[in-house]
Amino acid sequence: MPANPPRPQVKVRRINLDTGRENVVVISRQSMALRPDVFRGFSRVELRANGKVLLATLLLTDDGMVGPDEIGLAEPAFHRFAEPVGTPVTVTPASRPSSLDSVLGKIQGRTMSEAEITAIVDDISRYRYSDMELAAFLVGSASFMSSGELLALTKAMAQAGTQLTWDHRVVVDKHCIGGIPGNRTSMVVVPIVAAHGLMIPKTSSRAITSPAGTADTMEVLARVDLGVNELREVVNACHGCLAWGGHVNLSPADDILISVERPLSLDTREQMVASIMSKKLAAGSTHLLIDLPVGPSAKLARANDAMRLRKLFEFVGDHFGIEVEVITTDGRQPIGNGIGPVLEAQDVMAVLGNEPGAPRDLREKSLRLAAHLLEHDPELRGGAGYARARELLDGGAALRQMQKIIDAQGPSPCRSELGNLTADIVAPHDGVVTAIDCLRFNRLARSAGAPIDKGAGIKLFKKIGDRVTRGEPLYRIYAFGESELDLAVAGANAESGYTLDAQAGRETR
Amino acid sequence: MPANPPRPQVKVRRINLDTGRENVVVISRQSMALRPDVFRGFSRVELRANGKVLLATLLLTDDGMVGPDEIGLAEPAFHRFAEPVGTPVTVTPASRPSSLDSVLGKIQGRTMSEAEITAIVDDISRYRYSDMELAAFLVGSASFMSSGELLALTKAMAQAGTQLTWDHRVVVDKHCIGGIPGNRTSMVVVPIVAAHGLMIPKTSSRAITSPAGTADTMEVLARVDLGVNELREVVNACHGCLAWGGHVNLSPADDILISVERPLSLDTREQMVASIMSKKLAAGSTHLLIDLPVGPSAKLARANDAMRLRKLFEFVGDHFGIEVEVITTDGRQPIGNGIGPVLEAQDVMAVLGNEPGAPRDLREKSLRLAAHLLEHDPELRGGAGYARARELLDGGAALRQMQKIIDAQGPSPCRSELGNLTADIVAPHDGVVTAIDCLRFNRLARSAGAPIDKGAGIKLFKKIGDRVTRGEPLYRIYAFGESELDLAVAGANAESGYTLDAQAGRETR
Repeated sequence: MPANPPRPQVKVRRINLDTGRENVVVISRQSMALRPDVFRGFSRVELRANGKVLLATLLLTDDGMVGPDEIGLAEPAFHRFAEPVGTPVTVTPASRPSSLDSVLGKIQGRTMSEAEITAIVDDISRYRYSDMELAAFLVGSASFMSSGELLALTKAMAQAGTQLTWDHRVVVDKHCIGGIPGNRTSMVVVPIVAAHGLMIPKTSSRAITSPAGTADTMEVLARVDLGVNELREVVNACHGCLAWGGHVNLSPADDILISVERPLSLDTREQMVASIMSKKLAAGSTHLLIDLPVGPSAKLARANDAMRLRKLFEFVGDHFGIEVEVITTDGRQPIGNGIGPVLEAQDVMAVLGNEPGAPRDLREKSLRLAAHLLEHDPELRGGAGYARARELLDGGAALRQMQKIIDAQGPSPCRSELGNLTADIVAPHDGVVTAIDCLRFNRLARSAGAPIDKGAGIKLFKKIGDRVTRGEPLYRIYAFGESELDLAVAGANAESGYTLDAQAGRETR
Repeated sequence: MPANPPRPQVKVRRINLDTGRENVVVISRQSMALRPDVFRGFSRVELRANGKVLLATLLLTDDGMVGPDEIGLAEPAFHRFAEPVGTPVTVTPASRPSSLDSVLGKIQGRTMSEAEITAIVDDISRYRYSDMELAAFLVGSASFMSSGELLALTKAMAQAGTQLTWDHRVVVDKHCIGGIPGNRTSMVVVPIVAAHGLMIPKTSSRAITSPAGTADTMEVLARVDLGVNELREVVNACHGCLAWGGHVNLSPADDILISVERPLSLDTREQMVASIMSKKLAAGSTHLLIDLPVGPSAKLARANDAMRLRKLFEFVGDHFGIEVEVITTDGRQPIGNGIGPVLEAQDVMAVLGNEPGAPRDLREKSLRLAAHLLEHDPELRGGAGYARARELLDGGAALRQMQKIIDAQGPSPCRSELGNLTADIVAPHDGVVTAIDCLRFNRLARSAGAPIDKGAGIKLFKKIGDRVTRGEPLYRIYAFGESELDLAVAGANAESGYTLDAQAGRETR
């Protein structure tokens, strides 16, 4: 009776199946070595080979997808296990990740220690948690998180991936908590601040539930999937960049947690702050500006919500030595005219190019944010930030800096034409626009195909306060496929996203 | 611009993939009609055909598993959708089940109304919740559940599936909260009580994380997957039955919730009570005996825990008009000698047959439980329950009743021989057995192949208080495969599950 009996092995096979974040493997019900009948669908198993261990969710099959002496690894599992086809592996029922005991303790009301949180984040970033285990951690922490837990979570997430360091005393950054369509201020702010000479190595996310993230929109103009060294080169050459954070692997546990938070619509303050601050900590930022849009269809509906969130950002920033400034902004409607990567990129370039039709709200908001960041330059006279920002934008320095960044990041691999199918949604009656629903426009633009179709999206013709007459177009939907256009149009017809005050319209006519 | 544009359709294909509880579908990345790139792996989609709607988790593939004009339904989804291969279906991104808003409210600290809970249970029982959504509901309700919520959850779960009614004033039932290996008292209690003439339509579960449920063990002797009408026939003929509850579809939402609770090791009192009471309510029980084993490795470690649980059972029972009696029992070690379906069935038949080697603890505990139930017979003199139970058991009436039930349920489709490979685990030194770890033996017996291999398991030779000498066998492991035997033996060598007090052994020698 050996202490460690030899386990029968099966050979790795690759299964062409995209299972997203989750590691999935498939075995045959005829597998003699594995005794699949002791498992069930969606059991968790542990694969071992050459000192590597992979936790995965198991599916069973009777057909030829995998042979009795094989185990099929779906694409993400195959990629992460990184062993060639044919490699012999042992498979055993997985024990739960031991850090899950801390999660259960938390659910029962205990507070987690720093060591416990570090272990949880480590297991999460190694893809050891199943979907339901991730949900258990998030929901278990949602009702109450102590300030110690918040700090420990931020630190553990920041340390779980790449950590950038810079040889500069001032490394500025900005971040918006999201929710406002078209809000592409980073792409105006970064060129202004970098043109001034401050370091601003900006990494952004791709859209998860929105029609465009800054990375998706920037990708219309340039490559964004830079590696760590490429990112350094661009920043050293241009003082700034506009790269996708996912490729740099900053705070990978955060990306995994977000992929569960979003479909569940979990959005707790502590988790949002830990998420954002972990990424900024890992990115080596010293001065951070946080943009909190407030409006009826924004993430924050009232100024008071914004204040409570501001305090949390300040608390965490102070603890980790990041100088955090938090400002509230107008979140009552989309920023700019375009929603969707290509349309948003057009807005950005119009603002940088000082074109007559450039959206004024995007310009003004970007100048305000850039002004705050420029004030961190010790050389600049206090209060001169706004004037300096305008000088750089109006004089064309910002546009030239953007061109330099685009050239340094390299050409985009994506097509950048607008959707060739369009439909206009018109005003049902005369009136004045009194509200535009941000949530609705996020959804409509996604229906049209954004962000996957870069040129799909929505162009707004009217903003709050504008007067419209019956039959006048409110916005135009762009799409590439009939079915996307139909879906978006049907959605817009069901609920246009615009509120028109007919009374106000009549009075002013 | 039609309000409901025609959506492109794809044809149902069946994919030989067992995904357990979860509905999973596969589409081709080349699918033109579906635009799969707007989805991601593990997105949720909605299938519609012939007025039916199915929510499912989506996987993507590039290879020939499904064609561009097809959608592949994994076995459980195919079975639940119940449309033939080739049926045209429309596929859209799924909106979240609307009851999930109530779950989010609960996570944020609100109390759920009865209508909200009913909607949640309805969505769950129709397989509309993903794993992470199920976990969110369970964890969100774990920290606090009001008495109103507990009652509403019990009622909604009871009403979500089959509801049995009986033409008898007294319909007795018993239930153990589990955790104790070998604890097959139902299979002794039901024949005794039925032989007396009381109605006891017992439905039981199969093992989820244990090496045997009562349904698994009974299946060694008879068919257990009775439909509702068959169950009625058996009960009318025999006054009792020992059937699998899963096939009767009592409280299906509970079965789904349990399949998430178990891998997460979530075990909150309220959810346990709602789970058990919903099944008993649906089964039409009027008098219910609850067995709460207390012991260091049982689900309840202290008598005080048992008392708090008892109060909850009584509260819910009173509300729904079920007369609930709760007793605590000795849960310090396994009951009987066998662990695993065949070995446990042998114990049961030995007790019913009054064999000399029959395990005394199983006999005594069963008599005690049967006595409590028999006291509900108005004809019986108060306090005479135990004597009557013993009379029925010792006189052979219980055994005859068991044979009658077995005959009525029909022959088992399963093999019932014991595992042909065995290994004995011996005492490492002289001593007295002071503890036997229930959790450990659940795990060891599962490693050996139980409950899938009915004849796999463990036979205990020693119980607490027994004296052993060095090298004497403590227990025997039974398995059918070398690898299962090796795994169980390695586990037993790492941690035998027995505590031997060498001092006590020496003193008494």
